[in-house]
Amino acid sequence: MSLVRKHILRITPYKAGKPIEETKRELGLKKVIKLASNENPFGPSLKAIKAIEKNLTQINRYPDSHSFYLKKRLAGYYHLQPANIILGNGSDELIDIIIKTFVEDDENIITAKITFLEYEIIAQINKKKIITVPLRDFKYDLKAIKKRINQKTKLIFISNPNNPTGTYVNKYEIEDFMQDLPDKVIVVFDEAYDTFIDADDFLSGMSYVPKRNVIVLKTFSKAYGLAGLRLGYALTKEIFASYMERVRQPFNVNILAQIAGESALEDDGFLAKTRREILEGKRYLYKELNKLGINYIPSVANFILIDIKRDGVEFFKKMLSYGVIIRDMQQYGLKNFIRVTIGTSKENKIFIDVLKKILHKRKELR
Amino acid sequence: MSLVRKHILRITPYKAGKPIEETKRELGLKKVIKLASNENPFGPSLKAIKAIEKNLTQINRYPDSHSFYLKKRLAGYYHLQPANIILGNGSDELIDIIIKTFVEDDENIITAKITFLEYEIIAQINKKKIITVPLRDFKYDLKAIKKRINQKTKLIFISNPNNPTGTYVNKYEIEDFMQDLPDKVIVVFDEAYDTFIDADDFLSGMSYVPKRNVIVLKTFSKAYGLAGLRLGYALTKEIFASYMERVRQPFNVNILAQIAGESALEDDGFLAKTRREILEGKRYLYKELNKLGINYIPSVANFILIDIKRDGVEFFKKMLSYGVIIRDMQQYGLKNFIRVTIGTSKENKIFIDVLKKILHKRKELR
Repeated sequence: MSLVRKHILRITPYKAGKPIEETKRELGLKKVIKLASNENPFGPSLKAIKAIEKNLTQINRYPDSHSFYLKKRLAGYYHLQPANIILGNGSDELIDIIIKTFVEDDENIITAKITFLEYEIIAQINKKKIITVPLRDFKYDLKAIKKRINQKTKLIFISNPNNPTGTYVNKYEIEDFMQDLPDKVIVVFDEAYDTFIDADDFLSGMSYVPKRNVIVLKTFSKAYGLAGLRLGYALTKEIFASYMERVRQPFNVNILAQIAGESALEDDGFLAKTRREILEGKRYLYKELNKLGINYIPSVANFILIDIKRDGVEFFKKMLSYGVIIRDMQQYGLKNFIRVTIGTSKENKIFIDVLKKILHKRKELR
Repeated sequence: MSLVRKHILRITPYKAGKPIEETKRELGLKKVIKLASNENPFGPSLKAIKAIEKNLTQINRYPDSHSFYLKKRLAGYYHLQPANIILGNGSDELIDIIIKTFVEDDENIITAKITFLEYEIIAQINKKKIITVPLRDFKYDLKAIKKRINQKTKLIFISNPNNPTGTYVNKYEIEDFMQDLPDKVIVVFDEAYDTFIDADDFLSGMSYVPKRNVIVLKTFSKAYGLAGLRLGYALTKEIFASYMERVRQPFNVNILAQIAGESALEDDGFLAKTRREILEGKRYLYKELNKLGINYIPSVANFILIDIKRDGVEFFKKMLSYGVIIRDMQQYGLKNFIRVTIGTSKENKIFIDVLKKILHKRKELR
């Protein structure tokens, strides 16, 4: 007799890689570079590290349940109140909290077909119906999504910029979409990659907070360089936040994430440098890919979706054998694509060199 | 129109205190001691701190999703396989994962009436029926719990030792309880306080892992001194663990918790010292409470439930005004009780001194 709930067995879990150290050992590699998880390749902010070091003797104490100081600082940053903010153990947890808080058993959720996988996985774990709408030219198709809204629709997840495509829906598309939405629909804008956007017609979901039924997700895992600590947050109207606080576990955000988050938020220099270098790296990668005649989807994030025109899983393995970890797109249903995170200039160069080697070998074999 | 799910509004959320720094500021106190959350008063293990310091430059990277190294070490510690272990962002998260994994919408959960509050809160958040059975002499009444099992019972949570009473169900009670349980019932033994047990007839739920339908919860938040980092784990049969892994979020355990956990697990000296000092502190507190003629529930944990014979919330406030934070038991329905964590010998002495002051004042006023 299987004691697990039936719907749990139908879920395809998220696949994560092995630790780099194990990969190195198994493949006998001295050095491995990771361009797979859209992390900040310049490390964490030094200010964050220093703040952690100063507070290490406190880790025997439970974290502040209300993240009093970090919320205060975030509130200042966004010109909102602490009561507009909910912190999570990464945005992943906030997605779970949002679904648990708002979606009744008979209600549904809409998102795109090719987007951050956790929307669908977490919806399924919570036994909620999720409708996925195909992209249009690798972009969220907001018109098509709007057409799928029905009386039972409660949540819409919009990853903007979208992971794994790096595309975004612009100001006009969003404004059009937000017009005449049913009152009971809540729109979640996941803006994990907002720091890297270089487009004039981008509109943050923040322009609708706190007035509309909108929740904006932000994270310290990408540009802020704190992926390892797990820290994301949601910004929304006070009443929504108060509902979500009922569902949030009291000690979900660890003490060092709170402390590091405070410092990282203030480290403007680090953030500016990160943005500058990532944009420069993107130009370099575009140029080299163009030279090689390889197609890619123009990105406003810190990663590029590349049309590799051959099996992405095989390509991933080949790159790995050279010590470069990128992400195949099998889980997203993009068989002939890979996603590469923009790294340091040195890492970007290694990626291009290895890419050339692999392509060159194929030519020789023909 | 309220957009929150109806059952969410019926939940009484867990109440956590303000940060100590804010309390100090508000009350104009120079020093505050916290004997409220059953933390390790001797700080975190120095080995854990050192391990963290060495790895701080990695926190821009996502944590290892599988906690490869920590699981390996825990498996060695318990003579099990890594596949028998699931890690959580504290045990709180594991309670959520267990309920989500195993309890169908029409099934129920049983626990005690006065026990760790999160069993009931998390069950309610997940919209599951939870049956709470009164304690008997401040102890889990396993006989009464067994009688409440019906065809729809899926999970039973047993906090052993029990928080907030400090009592335990012994070997014979457990053996009796475990006999002839229905096949579809899963018993969760929450052994957060196991390090402090000084009783010969205690039986860990581990004696039923991996054979029976048992899940044992352990934590690094108490004796191991890592409450701030959030790290708990569940030990169970491999098939149960594999189901729970489907529900667990891929990056739920932060990188520093994993690293610190590995080191703390090896720091036998720190653990032994902690146990020795807590047991000594307990003897001291018993002696002083006896002298004062104050009743308490004998405890095998690192806290004592005290029958203060007057309103616990008022008493909490009075103690706070002297800079001592203890826990009132209002949320547990024990109006005239307080729970005090055993602290360092200095803290225990301060607690007793303040207790005397308050009692003395009352006498003077009469």
